[in-house]
Amino acid sequence: MSPDASGTPPAAPARPGSTTAAPARRKARDPLAPDPAASGGADAGFDPHVPNVDYGVLDNLIGYAIRRAQIRIYEDFVHSLAQWQITPPRFSALVIISRNPHLKLTDLAQILGIARSGAVLLVDALEEMNLVARRPAPGDRRAYSLVLTTAGRRTLEAATQAVVAHDAHAGSALTEAEQATLKSLLARLAPPRAG
Amino acid sequence: MSPDASGTPPAAPARPGSTTAAPARRKARDPLAPDPAASGGADAGFDPHVPNVDYGVLDNLIGYAIRRAQIRIYEDFVHSLAQWQITPPRFSALVIISRNPHLKLTDLAQILGIARSGAVLLVDALEEMNLVARRPAPGDRRAYSLVLTTAGRRTLEAATQAVVAHDAHAGSALTEAEQATLKSLLARLAPPRAG
Repeated sequence: MSPDASGTPPAAPARPGSTTAAPARRKARDPLAPDPAASGGADAGFDPHVPNVDYGVLDNLIGYAIRRAQIRIYEDFVHSLAQWQITPPRFSALVIISRNPHLKLTDLAQILGIARSGAVLLVDALEEMNLVARRPAPGDRRAYSLVLTTAGRRTLEAATQAVVAHDAHAGSALTEAEQATLKSLLARLAPPRAG
Repeated sequence: MSPDASGTPPAAPARPGSTTAAPARRKARDPLAPDPAASGGADAGFDPHVPNVDYGVLDNLIGYAIRRAQIRIYEDFVHSLAQWQITPPRFSALVIISRNPHLKLTDLAQILGIARSGAVLLVDALEEMNLVARRPAPGDRRAYSLVLTTAGRRTLEAATQAVVAHDAHAGSALTEAEQATLKSLLARLAPPRAG
């Protein structure tokens, strides 16, 4: 159980003067990632439409509709995978590494759409958790191939079941056809224009 | 123009030994945020389906379909708003602050679904850009209200036009009805189960 997933109401244990305690505990997290514990009330979670808040143009944007959905899904994902401390980027990295031999860090960054420096942090964390190892890459003395450890394979197997159950929960109010429609509409969003 | 949005192909200017230069330039960015410059080729952008990559279970997940869409939208957003250095979280914060008087940092964090520490970083950046100011909150000597500066109001007005155009581009392959369907399906994804 990570401290962030505990759902402890912020008002109960914290004295008014101790407001620095919570941010310190969260140091290791990406501060702009959705925060499962950032909600107002106990277990209330993220409210995409906080009462009496004027969202202005945000309510009209496809991009903000996606952001709202992403935060809710992220929260449930983190709760569901709390026992393994597996976040969505960690899970994606484990899957990609497990299924693509001889993968280098730059490949992983490109596939996941993150900066190379982000992939370094991600792989460092997974290595520290003993789930991933770097092996010398054949034919390139400066590069490493990424592989799952035995513990990594075992964790990925259990985590995959939890992720599939989590994703089924996320879509549980939609029919199979609606889920297919949702995925297909998302895939048809326009690629970025060249910068 | 931010350096990350330049679209410079990594292979061209960098000598083999200078691989530390690029991560250093990106220091200020959230390393796990989608990276507009992380792609393989020049101006190629994020490829949600890199050829010959096995995505395994990720291809079946609603969550990963949303993640893929979010990265593409993020890239085009950052390109579109490069002249103001406005990222999606910065834009959301400016809109929420502009439309909701007497907003405190904790309110902003809750509304945007981010950690309080993330809201601090966000508001610090916007304050440094001279777009947002902290004012003493009436009735609470320890808190501040957030307000837009004159420059903030002017920037938000121009940025909003750019964001609306960007969002229209993102949805340009969908009919109006399909866009409405997409938003409604996203809104029907299940809220997280209590942790």
